[in-house]
Amino acid sequence: MSGTEMHTVRSFEDELNQLSDIILRMGGMAEAQLTAAVQALVRRDSLAATDIIVADHRIDALEQDIHALAVRILALRQPMADDLRAIVSALKISADLERIGDYAANVAKRVLVINQLPPVPALASIPLMGRLVQEIIKEVLDAYVERDVEKALGVWHRDQEVDELHTSMFRELVSLMMEDPRNITACTHLMFVAKNIERIGDHATNIAETVHFLTVGRVLPMSRPKGDQAGEFMAPVQPSGSSRDT
Amino acid sequence: MSGTEMHTVRSFEDELNQLSDIILRMGGMAEAQLTAAVQALVRRDSLAATDIIVADHRIDALEQDIHALAVRILALRQPMADDLRAIVSALKISADLERIGDYAANVAKRVLVINQLPPVPALASIPLMGRLVQEIIKEVLDAYVERDVEKALGVWHRDQEVDELHTSMFRELVSLMMEDPRNITACTHLMFVAKNIERIGDHATNIAETVHFLTVGRVLPMSRPKGDQAGEFMAPVQPSGSSRDT
Repeated sequence: MSGTEMHTVRSFEDELNQLSDIILRMGGMAEAQLTAAVQALVRRDSLAATDIIVADHRIDALEQDIHALAVRILALRQPMADDLRAIVSALKISADLERIGDYAANVAKRVLVINQLPPVPALASIPLMGRLVQEIIKEVLDAYVERDVEKALGVWHRDQEVDELHTSMFRELVSLMMEDPRNITACTHLMFVAKNIERIGDHATNIAETVHFLTVGRVLPMSRPKGDQAGEFMAPVQPSGSSRDT
Repeated sequence: MSGTEMHTVRSFEDELNQLSDIILRMGGMAEAQLTAAVQALVRRDSLAATDIIVADHRIDALEQDIHALAVRILALRQPMADDLRAIVSALKISADLERIGDYAANVAKRVLVINQLPPVPALASIPLMGRLVQEIIKEVLDAYVERDVEKALGVWHRDQEVDELHTSMFRELVSLMMEDPRNITACTHLMFVAKNIERIGDHATNIAETVHFLTVGRVLPMSRPKGDQAGEFMAPVQPSGSSRDT
């Protein structure tokens, strides 16, 4: 191999490494934003919530960086096989991480509203969901770095725990609204907070699927367990003692 | 140009056309699913809702087709400039259309639950939102076919109408819940229905941004008007006559 070729090969590798470095940075930021948003909710901390909302654009900017870099690599390097998959995967994962950032920022926006309302009891399940989803994000990023399919599949299955927590949370919130109408506004926002966290979990499973594609070279054959098939849809809660028209 | 070259060129074009044909087919299906889901809601038609849920996998399958075709074209043709942008754009747009299909199916799932509950008055704004978003999808697909940046930017701005409708819908639903606790379960599902339709609008604006990138060759400089910055967050509704703890 000539010196020039060595140089070309090395700098192509550098570019690919740069792509996954940005992914990891984005992932770390998305994870931190989620954790901070849940903490801001628990502590009723509007200042922290504002910081989260403001910081979201940094994740968006990294997605743009990945997009630009990926298109440049595709155009200049015309990569094949594994390298091509690495680039397409980086595009997909960065889109998922950008959405995770959006959902975390949306939680923070709702914290600002919730903090203006009377506190609602029994918030325990939201930090629980938050911690679980944060762990899942961490794990799927590890799976990405280590190109570890087993770990990715683990994430894929663990997302069902999130869906179960989400379903019980949903029912708890409906009960609180029925008990006292003064809870209604805050509870509707908490429902969307819970939904956002559940959607973050879904995006983590998307990333797990992409890690599978990246490592194994083909798309996962099974259909993904989706949050919106959870028990939330199965047994609607009715106000106790009230009659049903249907 | 030799005969062989002609052939290669033509079949490359065929492949690119095939990509945009699948996008259009996906887009048509996503639009139809949304329309059908809103109709199923208005008519309380659980049979139609079930059909929509079952049909969703066909949109998912088309996304997989686009992914496979795009990766194949990237690997075999090593496209440059405009062609490369067309392929990256097809990947992005198909991801948005797949999500639109998911949201429509989610509306249909909620219709199944809502149909088991007493009817809630004043649903007029949901079909209104539905029709508006359906028009927006149609327009952004036209913009894609015609590579029409102006039309794409029109869609991008029109999404704010959707956000406004969504905000007023949200308030209306909170009021209904406060009036009668028997409305609560149905109204929470209707909130998510409205949210889903608003999110479909957001994905249409994503597509508009991609059409801009595809046509102009660079990313839109302005930041996108996002649904989650709408008035829903500004003035929380309080039960009339009840005291506030904070």
